[in-house]
Amino acid sequence: MKDIVYLDNSATTKPCKEAVEYMNKAMCDSWGNPSSLHTIGITAEDILISCKEACAKALSSRPDEIYFTSGGTEANNIAINGALLARAKQGNRIVTTAIEHPSVAEVINSFEAKGFEVIRLSPQADGKISIEDLRCAITKSTILVSIMLVNNEIGTIQPVKEASAFIKEVGAPAILHCDAVQAFGKLPVRPSALGVDLLTASGHKIHGPKGIGLLYKRKGLHLPALTFGGGQQENLRPGTEPTPLIASLEGAVRALPATATQLKKMSELNAYAKKQLAATGIVTFNSPEDALPYIINISVPGYRSETLLHFLDAQGIYVSSGSACAKGGQSPTLDALKLDKKRIDSALRISFSRDNTPEDIDRLCDALLRATQKLKRA
Amino acid sequence: MKDIVYLDNSATTKPCKEAVEYMNKAMCDSWGNPSSLHTIGITAEDILISCKEACAKALSSRPDEIYFTSGGTEANNIAINGALLARAKQGNRIVTTAIEHPSVAEVINSFEAKGFEVIRLSPQADGKISIEDLRCAITKSTILVSIMLVNNEIGTIQPVKEASAFIKEVGAPAILHCDAVQAFGKLPVRPSALGVDLLTASGHKIHGPKGIGLLYKRKGLHLPALTFGGGQQENLRPGTEPTPLIASLEGAVRALPATATQLKKMSELNAYAKKQLAATGIVTFNSPEDALPYIINISVPGYRSETLLHFLDAQGIYVSSGSACAKGGQSPTLDALKLDKKRIDSALRISFSRDNTPEDIDRLCDALLRATQKLKRA
Repeated sequence: MKDIVYLDNSATTKPCKEAVEYMNKAMCDSWGNPSSLHTIGITAEDILISCKEACAKALSSRPDEIYFTSGGTEANNIAINGALLARAKQGNRIVTTAIEHPSVAEVINSFEAKGFEVIRLSPQADGKISIEDLRCAITKSTILVSIMLVNNEIGTIQPVKEASAFIKEVGAPAILHCDAVQAFGKLPVRPSALGVDLLTASGHKIHGPKGIGLLYKRKGLHLPALTFGGGQQENLRPGTEPTPLIASLEGAVRALPATATQLKKMSELNAYAKKQLAATGIVTFNSPEDALPYIINISVPGYRSETLLHFLDAQGIYVSSGSACAKGGQSPTLDALKLDKKRIDSALRISFSRDNTPEDIDRLCDALLRATQKLKRA
Repeated sequence: MKDIVYLDNSATTKPCKEAVEYMNKAMCDSWGNPSSLHTIGITAEDILISCKEACAKALSSRPDEIYFTSGGTEANNIAINGALLARAKQGNRIVTTAIEHPSVAEVINSFEAKGFEVIRLSPQADGKISIEDLRCAITKSTILVSIMLVNNEIGTIQPVKEASAFIKEVGAPAILHCDAVQAFGKLPVRPSALGVDLLTASGHKIHGPKGIGLLYKRKGLHLPALTFGGGQQENLRPGTEPTPLIASLEGAVRALPATATQLKKMSELNAYAKKQLAATGIVTFNSPEDALPYIINISVPGYRSETLLHFLDAQGIYVSSGSACAKGGQSPTLDALKLDKKRIDSALRISFSRDNTPEDIDRLCDALLRATQKLKRA
């Protein structure tokens, strides 16, 4: 039996050995400033080139469409601020969903406060936004559409490609942004196939390091500078490039298993988990059948999430009561799904990585059963 | 004889072994999301607490006055944008110098374009701004004063403490920001003693990792949120905290030698360097006598900086032709000093770290002499 059962991989993942090795090598051997004109600088610059190539390959994009940020949050902030400033003269309408990550939702809120019109599409009972709603929402005055590819709380896959088609159909000036933090490395994510202009991914969700995110920006799309410095990354994101993180991200990206193979394995693990969880007789499922198999959101009605989380913690089993970023706060997605309060208050997010096994599921189910025997009902 | 002579430490420094070890440990053992409520998260959160304590000790500040950013550039951007938004109703005037880093200068330029009045104090012949000019510049309508502590190109120490006194004297509503990237770890830097409200430092200039900066914000000063996300770091800088970088920064900060001792050693190395460089008979000094001993800016009139840089590079000796961030571009400081063009075009910045030795100076001087024998005059 292994020591811990980590089932909170949507919050963060354990860095893989490649991420650690590449990081170390960059810290010890290629520590120059990539802007320096001498050999020590050029060696560091090679890290940028090599990582951009690896990321571009993973996204079927061009290396010069890849920009490095300090994480998904910064990438989302740059994308939305940049897109809205770029298109402010062409319209006033923003289309998004009611279940975005706060680093999208709250940036958009800040523009609503400045007078922009915001349409927030609520999910249907299956956790997805309606294609028909989406089609109606996008008008000729729409300047930004921002839709996450995979929801971080329940794993539903949202109709991003459809948004792209509707923008074209309507002839809207909209820039299409996709927060793909929970999708990258798990689903095939190809910005050009999705038709997005901007796409966000994060290092630490794919067994890479914390502190680095990736912004895909379609070649030819110009965004205004939002921050200022030494002109790095074409002024889209100035500041000395964090070469150890960039190298480590490359290690993580190169170590990603083939998506299709991994998705099949994960579907099997997901099916096993659902079967075993259902067999406990104490669990309700909040994730729909067709969600990404990496995330299963459940409720254990009658028991508060935090109480369960701490009980599991004591057994060396780690899950989340919502998204990590909310730190015990509200759950925007479950709220938007209008689940009853008891179900929301007893929700747990179980999220997998390629390191999880059926034995992890067995330990979770055993512990959940024990929890309902030992804990008082709320 | 060691392999390389690295004399470009103001561009970046080699990570020390503590920075590498702490980074590794965080990647392998404490890789949780510090916002997660379970033990894996709490272990990661301990890194934040511990690093804040180390940084606070180094700055004689409080741990809750320390915020982590992705680098000096982001810290400067947050400080200046935040300060100007916080005080915009109280005045319109910004006082700064003509020799700031682009991550200060260009943010201020962007506010000038929006109608703010900007006073840029030019340095005197000794590279320092005049105390009298500074006193006259600060008026009752001044809402921001931003002055670097140590200039990145020539090493002059600027009158930050005096600015603080003048703000009080005048009764200006100004927030005082100090870019201390080139000073932190080299001079005693105590925000409360300097009287600054905001102060910027960077990890990779003190043998720490790239990708992390530090913003000191005086307790009680409120800055508006500029970016949005999961509410981390009191919304001043949201996004999952990059625990490996934060741990590595802590390693670097804890490994900093006592400032006074190190400053004495560096003054000796600086004196030796000046003596040997002067003895070559081919060098003019651009740094004044009382500059921080870590930086010596010289010119080798008749030879272009880039040509010299590449000649030295081929010998395994690494210096800079200006600041790394300019990547071969203009030198704002030497321009502001109104040096003649020939002197600017032949300038080299030699910048030391605690790893440099007198032998490094000897190799540099030998190579410079050889350069003037072998290279054609420009």
